[in-house]
Amino acid sequence: MKALEGVKVLDLTHAYNGPFCTTLLADNGADVIKFEPIQGDQCRSWGPIDEKSGESGFYAFLNRNKKGVTLNLKNEKAREIFYDLVKDADVVVENFRAGVSKKLKVDYETLKEINPSIIYASGSGFGQYGPLSNRPCYDIVAQSMGGMVNMTGFPDSPPTKVGPSIADNVTGIYLCVGVLMALFNRERTGRGQQVDVAMADTIFSLLENAIVTTTMDGVIPQRQGNIDPSIAPFDIYEAKDGYIAIGVGNDRLFKTFCETIGREDLLDDPRYQTNDLRCKNYTNGLQQLISEWVATKGKKEIEDLFDKAGIPCGPVLDMQEAIDHPHFQAREMMVHMDHPTIGEMYFQGCPIKLTETPGSVDTPAPLLGQHNKEVFGLTDEELESLKAEGVM
Amino acid sequence: MKALEGVKVLDLTHAYNGPFCTTLLADNGADVIKFEPIQGDQCRSWGPIDEKSGESGFYAFLNRNKKGVTLNLKNEKAREIFYDLVKDADVVVENFRAGVSKKLKVDYETLKEINPSIIYASGSGFGQYGPLSNRPCYDIVAQSMGGMVNMTGFPDSPPTKVGPSIADNVTGIYLCVGVLMALFNRERTGRGQQVDVAMADTIFSLLENAIVTTTMDGVIPQRQGNIDPSIAPFDIYEAKDGYIAIGVGNDRLFKTFCETIGREDLLDDPRYQTNDLRCKNYTNGLQQLISEWVATKGKKEIEDLFDKAGIPCGPVLDMQEAIDHPHFQAREMMVHMDHPTIGEMYFQGCPIKLTETPGSVDTPAPLLGQHNKEVFGLTDEELESLKAEGVM
Repeated sequence: MKALEGVKVLDLTHAYNGPFCTTLLADNGADVIKFEPIQGDQCRSWGPIDEKSGESGFYAFLNRNKKGVTLNLKNEKAREIFYDLVKDADVVVENFRAGVSKKLKVDYETLKEINPSIIYASGSGFGQYGPLSNRPCYDIVAQSMGGMVNMTGFPDSPPTKVGPSIADNVTGIYLCVGVLMALFNRERTGRGQQVDVAMADTIFSLLENAIVTTTMDGVIPQRQGNIDPSIAPFDIYEAKDGYIAIGVGNDRLFKTFCETIGREDLLDDPRYQTNDLRCKNYTNGLQQLISEWVATKGKKEIEDLFDKAGIPCGPVLDMQEAIDHPHFQAREMMVHMDHPTIGEMYFQGCPIKLTETPGSVDTPAPLLGQHNKEVFGLTDEELESLKAEGVM
Repeated sequence: MKALEGVKVLDLTHAYNGPFCTTLLADNGADVIKFEPIQGDQCRSWGPIDEKSGESGFYAFLNRNKKGVTLNLKNEKAREIFYDLVKDADVVVENFRAGVSKKLKVDYETLKEINPSIIYASGSGFGQYGPLSNRPCYDIVAQSMGGMVNMTGFPDSPPTKVGPSIADNVTGIYLCVGVLMALFNRERTGRGQQVDVAMADTIFSLLENAIVTTTMDGVIPQRQGNIDPSIAPFDIYEAKDGYIAIGVGNDRLFKTFCETIGREDLLDDPRYQTNDLRCKNYTNGLQQLISEWVATKGKKEIEDLFDKAGIPCGPVLDMQEAIDHPHFQAREMMVHMDHPTIGEMYFQGCPIKLTETPGSVDTPAPLLGQHNKEVFGLTDEELESLKAEGVM
């Protein structure tokens, strides 16, 4: 049994943030029905594209474990079909552009008339209220306005966006938290509600002490590259064959560190006696000294040395190295899936490990409209007729 | 009423990832009791430090809404006090180093003997099983090994860590998802379980299509700076007074974009007819042309122009600009809190907006051991005597 078995989710999401939420729900047993317009989720054209089938690898990893139907919500008959499903659904998730759900008459106000205990989750760039709620947004915009971009990168480099789209996917995770809180509350009160998460708010919420540093100290944090202003040594160094992160968080570890690199002499150096002093004297001495030592070694050699000594460290892995790493392999962070048209796929598994109700990847992403007959309870003739009418 | 009212959480966490999970729970109504060793959570020494009181601003924003007690879990009497609270608790959250919870006899195996329906959530660097589960970890190590660092930054810059500690805080959010799934399942089955989230897994789970690009195409994604290889124009540009992100996701928007910058001539340029062509001809032409246009304008001027035209864009905000921005103000992403020793504080609010059971920041972070009497039900004399014994 999975944790969310019996929870019925009507998934109106497209692109990335909404679907990431419903993936977490589907991986953990919710019955997720993904509704796509007749032309399909835009994400079906996002790379990588399988050459043979023309199918999107992006769509395929993101929509595993979901059933897929098509429905043209601009069509009245389609809308009635949808309303009928809302009656005994638990959750609706959407990430339409502002105003679209209302125009399509699938907004919360409309659906709660049909099912007052429905939980309606909305992911967006700038939220369901506020001065920017109507503004379009991409991940890069949310990262920029949320304050993340200005604090990522080196002091002498331009502000830098986080490579992967973390405004999107963390918004999906927060949406999932909201849905689960609302579900738990509904078990006790019977009441539904709307969940509202904005990508800009998500990014803002991840800034940790940058906010209090600004409001308490009046200091606006700036880009620091790979160092931590309050711990030293704590940096990413270039070894003979790549980069490696090393963190030395306290005096005890610094002693071990000096012994490990054969530089016990540093322990007597007045510049490095405390973490505070090491921070002050890091970029003007300690950093170069360590960089020179690291440059003479291989990543693996350093990792083994420091692992034995109990010093936190780890190589900067590229995507292939991470995929193949024994840690991610043992944790089933990569799973195999046979896709009906792409064939054998190999993509990310479930990051939340539950001992009694483990999540898993069981079924491939749906082909466009694959579950129309099953979900809508149609004969072949009915399906053809509704297709001809432009309903699905 | 809040969503999680009545849920009792025993919070054994310290530092950042575990506490971020219990903050989400506490903001939404769970009764969170934070257990600290007698010397306090290490995070009480993390900056910014209030000069007057010596109190940590980091600790203060992160531990709002929680009750605080001290307990020396190495002491047998302290452990008995803890076990007594476990009997009617719903959730235990911990992020001890591997092996510590077992040594302290507060591991899941021990606690489920006392309360079989307990939900026990564990945050760690490398998880409760797997070849690295005993290895110490910092955020920078998880970001590096998880694959994020290698994909952040510019092609000609070193691999770059994300400024804020997203391995920590997103692990906290996933832990919260796990706790809520387990709580929901327990409502139906009565069964408890353990939740296991690793910082390295968290980072790995955020890499979106980088993984399928590697496994399907055999191409290892590399750092791309601020551009998106599959959309153009999509970048961060330097204006007269700072940086601004602009994203032009399709042909329709590109037409509007060209009209807005007064360059309708580009619409006839064969190099820019489709998104695919624009991607191919971005860094060798289009990028410079747009950069030159942006460089002659102010951020606000561009934002206003593009906002009117419906083109996704937004300035790169520094921490002060973000805090003051009308969007974050209207969304209550900043809240005021009166702290007993620091005084007036101003820090981050709740990113998940629930219409019927909104989360909120109601009480300041606890002083060390502030709720010992209340939570443990002690008289002044008993408290003093237990303190003298080294129990709390």
